[in-house]
Amino acid sequence: MITITRRIEFCAAHRLHNPDLSDAENKRIYGVCNNKNGHGHNYAIEVTVRGALPRKTGMVMDLKDLNDILQKVIHNPCDHKHLNHDVAMFESVIPTAENMAIKFWEAVDDELQQYHGVHLHLVRVIESRNNFVDYTGPDPGDIV
Amino acid sequence: MITITRRIEFCAAHRLHNPDLSDAENKRIYGVCNNKNGHGHNYAIEVTVRGALPRKTGMVMDLKDLNDILQKVIHNPCDHKHLNHDVAMFESVIPTAENMAIKFWEAVDDELQQYHGVHLHLVRVIESRNNFVDYTGPDPGDIV
Amino acid sequence: MITITRRIEFCAAHRLHNPDLSDAENKRIYGVCNNKNGHGHNYAIEVTVRGALPRKTGMVMDLKDLNDILQKVIHNPCDHKHLNHDVAMFESVIPTAENMAIKFWEAVDDELQQYHGVHLHLVRVIESRNNFVDYTGPDPGDIV
Amino acid sequence: MITITRRIEFCAAHRLHNPDLSDAENKRIYGVCNNKNGHGHNYAIEVTVRGALPRKTGMVMDLKDLNDILQKVIHNPCDHKHLNHDVAMFESVIPTAENMAIKFWEAVDDELQQYHGVHLHLVRVIESRNNFVDYTGPDPGDIV
Amino acid sequence: MITITRRIEFCAAHRLHNPDLSDAENKRIYGVCNNKNGHGHNYAIEVTVRGALPRKTGMVMDLKDLNDILQKVIHNPCDHKHLNHDVAMFESVIPTAENMAIKFWEAVDDELQQYHGVHLHLVRVIESRNNFVDYTGPDPGDIV
Amino acid sequence: MITITRRIEFCAAHRLHNPDLSDAENKRIYGVCNNKNGHGHNYAIEVTVRGALPRKTGMVMDLKDLNDILQKVIHNPCDHKHLNHDVAMFESVIPTAENMAIKFWEAVDDELQQYHGVHLHLVRVIESRNNFVDYTGPDPGDIV
Repeated sequence: MITITRRIEFCAAHRLHNPDLSDAENKRIYGVCNNKNGHGHNYAIEVTVRGALPRKTGMVMDLKDLNDILQKVIHNPCDHKHLNHDVAMFESVIPTAENMAIKFWEAVDDELQQYHGVHLHLVRVIESRNNFVDYTGPDPGDIV
Repeated sequence: MITITRRIEFCAAHRLHNPDLSDAENKRIYGVCNNKNGHGHNYAIEVTVRGALPRKTGMVMDLKDLNDILQKVIHNPCDHKHLNHDVAMFESVIPTAENMAIKFWEAVDDELQQYHGVHLHLVRVIESRNNFVDYTGPDPGDIV
Repeated sequence: MITITRRIEFCAAHRLHNPDLSDAENKRIYGVCNNKNGHGHNYAIEVTVRGALPRKTGMVMDLKDLNDILQKVIHNPCDHKHLNHDVAMFESVIPTAENMAIKFWEAVDDELQQYHGVHLHLVRVIESRNNFVDYTGPDPGDIV
Repeated sequence: MITITRRIEFCAAHRLHNPDLSDAENKRIYGVCNNKNGHGHNYAIEVTVRGALPRKTGMVMDLKDLNDILQKVIHNPCDHKHLNHDVAMFESVIPTAENMAIKFWEAVDDELQQYHGVHLHLVRVIESRNNFVDYTGPDPGDIV
Repeated sequence: MITITRRIEFCAAHRLHNPDLSDAENKRIYGVCNNKNGHGHNYAIEVTVRGALPRKTGMVMDLKDLNDILQKVIHNPCDHKHLNHDVAMFESVIPTAENMAIKFWEAVDDELQQYHGVHLHLVRVIESRNNFVDYTGPDPGDIV
Repeated sequence: MITITRRIEFCAAHRLHNPDLSDAENKRIYGVCNNKNGHGHNYAIEVTVRGALPRKTGMVMDLKDLNDILQKVIHNPCDHKHLNHDVAMFESVIPTAENMAIKFWEAVDDELQQYHGVHLHLVRVIESRNNFVDYTGPDPGDIV
């Protein structure tokens, strides 16, 4: 198996808060991440795709195309924004790193449908040097 | 000259906005950093002190003491906060990296007064891998 | 599949030496790592857990809980210690990066038993920028 | 499963160009990477091997042996060279990161044949902080 | 004194070779860096400017402006190029890291003339993690 | 002014302990760093030299020569050693990062005497990502 990975970065604020729960329960679950005015991160996102390797090009996929997709569906909507208030895909989704990985997977996967023989393999959301989330898609049984 | 440097990190949201200016002028000056709901960073702060080197200890200053100061006056007030709304030292100061360096210098310098023979030398505010600010104090002529 | 990873760091000395072997054989097997007085590293340990993602929290596991476990069973016993002489779990185990990964797995896995639906997935022991060890548990067939 | 990973680095120039294609098509496929005089990178290569863990040594494989192999078949032929013009293994292979991963896999795998119970598991070619390629060998079905 | 620093990166090939010297002398002086077909690096350039801090903006200089300058005079001419063959400023200058720092200083300094009260302070050329060059301008006596 | 910097790394154990002081006072001054069996680090040392820039070579100093000096007087004596017990230069010197910077300065400065027009400018001892020491020599007045 051969994969290529592209990394992008963006700066954003977020707040972990479930509006269906009481303030006390939010505080208990999310701790300092529940701060009313939010906090923020320099996020790094690594997106990995796998596919066949055409002898003609020696590339699984044009990195520029992959980069353009990540700019369009991740960087542009999220950079220098507050994820909870400014970003459509988190309108009704709590922007934990886990949920971010899932939403970014969905957005990138949509764009990759037009690329024959290329499959999304992994989305990594790096919130800080000390923690990151990996997501390999809705049905791991599909991943060879 | 011999110096020791300690690095701490915190995650915070901020917004660059001068309330004395019009919205249009704020937008022109600060661009994407003026986003109403703010954005955020994993900040890293490096604080450097210089001093004599006592033969008895071989240490300019106890790193644990320096770390305790940085925790008290930088990390604890700022971590997982919105600098504009939650942090006293930025109540009437725009939290640009430059102003953060100056306010952190003042706060650390106050604490260092009780340490004989140790002088604050440099505060570096690292906002992202691509930009940082250095501040060497209000009167550079004092710096030997 | 979705996983979260937490990283901790500690500073420790160690020596690679098998007391059941001759000095000559130890020297041949471990080379410079067999130095009698030991050497040391800034170790970084990355621990990955996988699990279901509750809609209510959007978190596989509370990162603070995971961090507390790693502090308790990895950082506190090992930081600023000599692994061979000061740390119970290496009393009769040669502290190679491989064995460290296995012992840390066992220690973290014990603590995770009380967390329903969360499973230890990977322990990475990073000895230096140039080498690390990955361990995925005693029976890879269990890992889905 | 337990694996060890060794990282090496080298500096090299390369050009992405398929001599069987027209200049226009090369430009379209490879963009700026097709620059006639080439460009270059500080490459980092991470090679991962898996194997049983002998109780006697606590090491999957002697890291010094693995390092010697990587020096011999990767670093020495490629460092401070132009991959297209100076390196035998890329004489008729376009030095994309994907092809580099495959050629390095083949070269390391040859050397590992003499090590009983040790298997090549992953070759990662890191071209820059923003992109890397992973290769797990010609028949992923073999990888347990 | 207060400074801000902006970092950019580019990938390029280069060759250390003085056409006024014999091949033997070039080989003796530059060693592996004299390889005829060149080699390459992921270069990182850090450019530091100092200046007064206007109370109105809290910024020594608009980072976007500084970034635009670095894109224009450093990144655009050098990225994915062979410094010796493709870049005008190295037409008759050997592209050692030292000479690169001087040429980049001159190019950035020209652009900064239109910014009142802002002075170029330092250009750092990082060739690899293991070596970099700092240049503080043609007359260090000017630097306060 | 123009400088070049070379970085080397080594792994070592050390213990902070002044034999002229009581155990209680050592514990009070050095805390966890006083652990009887020592602890350790992946040390990184950055050595900066300044000098004139010969038009003929475009290099302040041959980086290979500088690297050879650092290997000889820093890496070889210290790597995979216990600084207190195995390294001559710390026989009667407590191996704090400050004292290490001074001893490395002296050792490198001795070697540089044979290089006309090249002066040692800075020695940085990086003990971990969170702390480092800078030393600019015994008489800062000499440093222009």
